Amino acid sequence: MNGTTSIEKAVRDKLDNLTKPKGSLGFLEEIVVKYAKITGKTEFHLPLKKMVFVFCGDHGVAEEGVSAYPQEVTAQMVYNFIKGGAGINVISRYVGAEVYVVDVGVKEDILSQSENFIMRKISYGTRNFTKEPAMTEEQAQKSIEVGIEMSELAQSKRADIVIPGDMGIANTTPSSAIISFVTEQPPEKVVGRGTGIDDTRLRKKIEVVKRAIEMWKPKDGFDALCKFGGFEIGAIAGLILGCKKNKIPVVLDGLITLAGFLIAYSIDPEVKDYVFAGHKTAEPGGNVALSFLGIRPILDLDMRLGEGTGGTLATSIIECALKIYNEMATFSSAGVSQSNI
Amino acid sequence: MNGTTSIEKAVRDKLDNLTKPKGSLGFLEEIVVKYAKITGKTEFHLPLKKMVFVFCGDHGVAEEGVSAYPQEVTAQMVYNFIKGGAGINVISRYVGAEVYVVDVGVKEDILSQSENFIMRKISYGTRNFTKEPAMTEEQAQKSIEVGIEMSELAQSKRADIVIPGDMGIANTTPSSAIISFVTEQPPEKVVGRGTGIDDTRLRKKIEVVKRAIEMWKPKDGFDALCKFGGFEIGAIAGLILGCKKNKIPVVLDGLITLAGFLIAYSIDPEVKDYVFAGHKTAEPGGNVALSFLGIRPILDLDMRLGEGTGGTLATSIIECALKIYNEMATFSSAGVSQSNI
Repeated sequence: MNGTTSIEKAVRDKLDNLTKPKGSLGFLEEIVVKYAKITGKTEFHLPLKKMVFVFCGDHGVAEEGVSAYPQEVTAQMVYNFIKGGAGINVISRYVGAEVYVVDVGVKEDILSQSENFIMRKISYGTRNFTKEPAMTEEQAQKSIEVGIEMSELAQSKRADIVIPGDMGIANTTPSSAIISFVTEQPPEKVVGRGTGIDDTRLRKKIEVVKRAIEMWKPKDGFDALCKFGGFEIGAIAGLILGCKKNKIPVVLDGLITLAGFLIAYSIDPEVKDYVFAGHKTAEPGGNVALSFLGIRPILDLDMRLGEGTGGTLATSIIECALKIYNEMATFSSAGVSQSNI
Repeated sequence: MNGTTSIEKAVRDKLDNLTKPKGSLGFLEEIVVKYAKITGKTEFHLPLKKMVFVFCGDHGVAEEGVSAYPQEVTAQMVYNFIKGGAGINVISRYVGAEVYVVDVGVKEDILSQSENFIMRKISYGTRNFTKEPAMTEEQAQKSIEVGIEMSELAQSKRADIVIPGDMGIANTTPSSAIISFVTEQPPEKVVGRGTGIDDTRLRKKIEVVKRAIEMWKPKDGFDALCKFGGFEIGAIAGLILGCKKNKIPVVLDGLITLAGFLIAYSIDPEVKDYVFAGHKTAEPGGNVALSFLGIRPILDLDMRLGEGTGGTLATSIIECALKIYNEMATFSSAGVSQSNI
């Protein structure tokens, strides 16, 4: 029996001895098993130390009119994250997670001395991929390296669980292109309304994605990252690759983190065994990615905010599952009779 | 504009001004609106004071061999609840809920001086409904009154949210009978494996439910409660009716609380506007009940433990939704540009 198998057996044996009908905690039990297999541990210290990395970058394709918001919102939201006013900040306070805001490619300079702000700007936004590749190979490589660096930061701070997040006006467009390319599903099935575009912009967005895939014909996931961008998506891929190496479970959020995950997956398919899908996003491309991967999401609340919000909210379910494993009485300790069949 | 409509408008206006694309928090936003409409408030004090009532009772129909566990497990689990070792205890500690254990009909005397144990025994178990009605009308009425009394206790302790729970070996059988009767769906679609019975016992259980509905032909929900039982199901119905009167939101758990809810609903259909469906249970009858009512569950984790576990876990999602509403920055306060379409 190899290590992973013996860990799974130990965890399932304990779960089956808790005072509940066998398997009656359903997916919560599978979460505990997966967490144990990723970390290689069968005992869990709670509360989990949770770290959120919100990678922020701008996108040249925004000039095609594919978003409902003007591009300056990326930088404005970075300040909002730093001040603690965004959705990801509130959810992180609720679950007890630390938030790090990482500028990997915002179009303007972010002026902040905050401890939670990390400046790793690779460029002032990607280029418009309808006209030229979004990033050079070197830039794409650098974005992945920033993510790996953040996984090392998480490791050095003894994080138990990591949640990637994103901010970047228009970033559902490159994400949809990546998902469509990797899963080989047509853009019509993948592209959604993002922040809330109308029918006209949706048709335009589908057209932009379709033409770009035909034009650039990426040869693999890394090439798709170069061609479509963006910096935050590459950083998410790097974070996932680095956390796998450090055996830190990662909880994915929605469309953008799934695109980042698919880049990581195309580099190392084993990352699939190291992540949880935090939720089923309302963006159609998210479900295309989850179906392609065969990963079951923890929550299904029609969220489509990004920033890592869905992934961070899901950590409360993971943590509660581990607490159940830690604290529930066994049949023998509680003097409860076992099943008679 | 009446009170409820103006409250909904005030809450939606605030939600639409938070720094996020309109509607992008999906079901979380609907949860906030519903919570506000139930309580009549547009400001929320957090953390919520959460109270779980686990009503416990035995069932005469257990002698038909419809459960995987022997009947003494009901009393054993009551002691487990009092000592804090059961699933509901751990989840309640996780979300910060108080657990009250209420004996409404356990077959043996429970010897406990615990502050969280409330003795309201109506009888030592129901009668076997394959042979005689499970309860007299007076007993059924009493069980509802115990639930109403607990809603008054919740009100006096200033509970913000209440979660009904259950314990009673064989209680998925009367619950399935009630759900099948009220929703007019055939027992084959409603009856499930409960604690984990095999195919033989499942066929037996379906047969028991089918024959009982034909034999007793209940004239309404209350009559179904009398005929099938049980004490905990009546108490859950009473708790829901009482919480509605006191404007305290109730979070339903799985099959047994849905059966209790359907009894309350048959007495006062407006209770539907006062409850959240905590989760989608793995028991088929739970989904029959939710579809009949048209209520969307918050979680979907294949749980089927009962005790109030799914409902209690869901309170963390509700509470986080309210915190988002309380604490997120608005577009103007954060200096973020609005949508340009």
